[in-house]
Amino acid sequence: MFPHTAPDPRIGRRLDDPVVETPAFLVSDAKLEANLTAAKERAKALGVTLRPHLKTHKSIEIARRQMMSPEGPATVSTLLEAEYFAANGVTDLIYAVGIAPQKLGRVERIRASGCDLKILLDNVDAARHVSAYTAARSIEIPVLVEIDVDGHRSGITPESDLLLEVVKSLTGGARFVGLLTHAGASYDKEGAANARGAARRERDGIVLAADRLRAEGIEVPIVSVGSTPTVFAAEDETGVTEIRCGVYAMFDLFMTNLGVCTLDRIAGSVLTTVIGHQKEKGQVIVDAGWMAMSRDRGTARQHEDFGYGLVCDLAGRPVRGLDVRMTGANQEHGILQAVAGEALKPEDFPVGRRLRILPNHACPTAAPYEKLLLVEDETLTVKAALDHVRGW
Amino acid sequence: MFPHTAPDPRIGRRLDDPVVETPAFLVSDAKLEANLTAAKERAKALGVTLRPHLKTHKSIEIARRQMMSPEGPATVSTLLEAEYFAANGVTDLIYAVGIAPQKLGRVERIRASGCDLKILLDNVDAARHVSAYTAARSIEIPVLVEIDVDGHRSGITPESDLLLEVVKSLTGGARFVGLLTHAGASYDKEGAANARGAARRERDGIVLAADRLRAEGIEVPIVSVGSTPTVFAAEDETGVTEIRCGVYAMFDLFMTNLGVCTLDRIAGSVLTTVIGHQKEKGQVIVDAGWMAMSRDRGTARQHEDFGYGLVCDLAGRPVRGLDVRMTGANQEHGILQAVAGEALKPEDFPVGRRLRILPNHACPTAAPYEKLLLVEDETLTVKAALDHVRGW
Repeated sequence: MFPHTAPDPRIGRRLDDPVVETPAFLVSDAKLEANLTAAKERAKALGVTLRPHLKTHKSIEIARRQMMSPEGPATVSTLLEAEYFAANGVTDLIYAVGIAPQKLGRVERIRASGCDLKILLDNVDAARHVSAYTAARSIEIPVLVEIDVDGHRSGITPESDLLLEVVKSLTGGARFVGLLTHAGASYDKEGAANARGAARRERDGIVLAADRLRAEGIEVPIVSVGSTPTVFAAEDETGVTEIRCGVYAMFDLFMTNLGVCTLDRIAGSVLTTVIGHQKEKGQVIVDAGWMAMSRDRGTARQHEDFGYGLVCDLAGRPVRGLDVRMTGANQEHGILQAVAGEALKPEDFPVGRRLRILPNHACPTAAPYEKLLLVEDETLTVKAALDHVRGW
Repeated sequence: MFPHTAPDPRIGRRLDDPVVETPAFLVSDAKLEANLTAAKERAKALGVTLRPHLKTHKSIEIARRQMMSPEGPATVSTLLEAEYFAANGVTDLIYAVGIAPQKLGRVERIRASGCDLKILLDNVDAARHVSAYTAARSIEIPVLVEIDVDGHRSGITPESDLLLEVVKSLTGGARFVGLLTHAGASYDKEGAANARGAARRERDGIVLAADRLRAEGIEVPIVSVGSTPTVFAAEDETGVTEIRCGVYAMFDLFMTNLGVCTLDRIAGSVLTTVIGHQKEKGQVIVDAGWMAMSRDRGTARQHEDFGYGLVCDLAGRPVRGLDVRMTGANQEHGILQAVAGEALKPEDFPVGRRLRILPNHACPTAAPYEKLLLVEDETLTVKAALDHVRGW
């Protein structure tokens, strides 16, 4: 399962070597390391466990550098990720999407392989399905209940009567192990004050929910919170046992606009090659379109709309501040243009020139590539071709 | 290369069988067949060759039903597609994205494997790169020159002096074999009149360019046009030798909004499972988010904004006309809501219920799935798990 094959021919090659074909997804080794270290330091300062979300890259090699131990803990967004990380020795995982009853067989198989995979739910129906399944199979599945602290998506509000009802519906081998919340609303507004407020609401909400359960004599071993903005803004996580964050490993333009990171901390980029020009329009055409960058236009509703990405040179430095962006994209074509300054000249971007484009959102951008190329920043060479999983 | 493994366990299972896990990408067999037939009939009626674009599904099994022969002709958007289809016996391909010089080695290898792969370019620099490469390697590479009929993206305008310059820059083994254009502007406006106009401009532009070259004594064997809207709207393709179209195989909500197809011709959908509710908001939460649907929000600028997709029952019929849509999405969560009618009730969408979501855009939606599941429409069972390629 997930075998490694012959050494990748790109390893040791420079980013302008034809063997490194484009488009390719690059991860700056030094920036990645700095980002991973920053989250570990946050967890230490806050006195909580770090349970990174691995959905951004889905790569065991990055996960091993990111987790507190080779066995975890960590968070996943699909059962394929759970299988892959379990097969690679990770034994403490939360699948942080509400469980569908039909997935319990696959959960059982992953747990039987030796991984303590925990599941999530927020309703009585799902709790009954898990209870019935575990009773029928005489097995145990640890369950977290999802709390909604900001009306973002799913979960139960901390004050709700439903909370006790759902927890009490867990019978058979459906073992309640704690609460989980995600302050998704921290993505909606820019600025540090918003992130700090979201972090406070995330903590206050889940701690209230945990206290209500404990008042009923129910143990709540895991109290799990997190999102990249709140983890980096949180001032106090008293009552919380662990923090989760994912996109921070690579960061992206969306996070830069939010104010969570600076541009020079973005570790993920797409390597592309110039294939033509529309001289009259001041456009440069490259071989990375929306399949390579993703259709994510998240920055469109922020203070800087980066189009499909910010254009950088081979070393990863913006070619002209924030001025040159991928303003349009088709499936395999990208259109680069200056948004304010002088029109781009073909002689500055000759056919065959390579560029790096910073993405709006690291998670969808990294997803379609067969491998993620880890780049040695000083030499601009490929250090490793990282395995990861795609699909479900 | 691209080996087939053991039979897929999903074959023969109904769409509500837990073995068919969600999210999954479904292709209705009957609708696919009707769409493929319609394009063949268009080509016949217009008296031209059909060279379908395989980028929508990237699957040899669909391609074989779609092409005029098992050997082609066909169009691809990446060299990985070219390799995959060549390895599966397709011998007449156009790679319809302007060539990057660094890709010529891979083109050479694909051609050496027995596939007549043709490349595309629109500038003197690229022409010189191909000329130098073929001369140095003593090989031949057939080249098409791209024409711009509507300012959509890349290409040379038919009247431009550059046209002759580029064609005359092709020396060595860089053999000029014709012209190609894509009326991308046909996607910008709704209605049949717009598509008919775009088809006329596509033909008039490329025929003018071909005539200008012939007046110089240059042969132009291939005159290639196409986009799904123009292929289905064209009234006369005199002077054109072949038509290209891709998304028509599956169609999607964007094409429905354009007026190119009706809703019941959309062959691709995403199978998903209900995992929860937000009762107060009338929301149903499912296990297909933007990773499963894609981030494509193309219908946002059309007369019906379908959010991330239109919600259908297991048989593929809209559950309540155009009213119930995926109005929000996170990476692996989708939020379903009524946009005008009565709020959704949890009892109508119980946890575990399966639904099918029609996508905005078939190409990005199908891309991340390991297999595409072909569905027998009468029995709602999986007929085949189709191989396809992902990435580059």
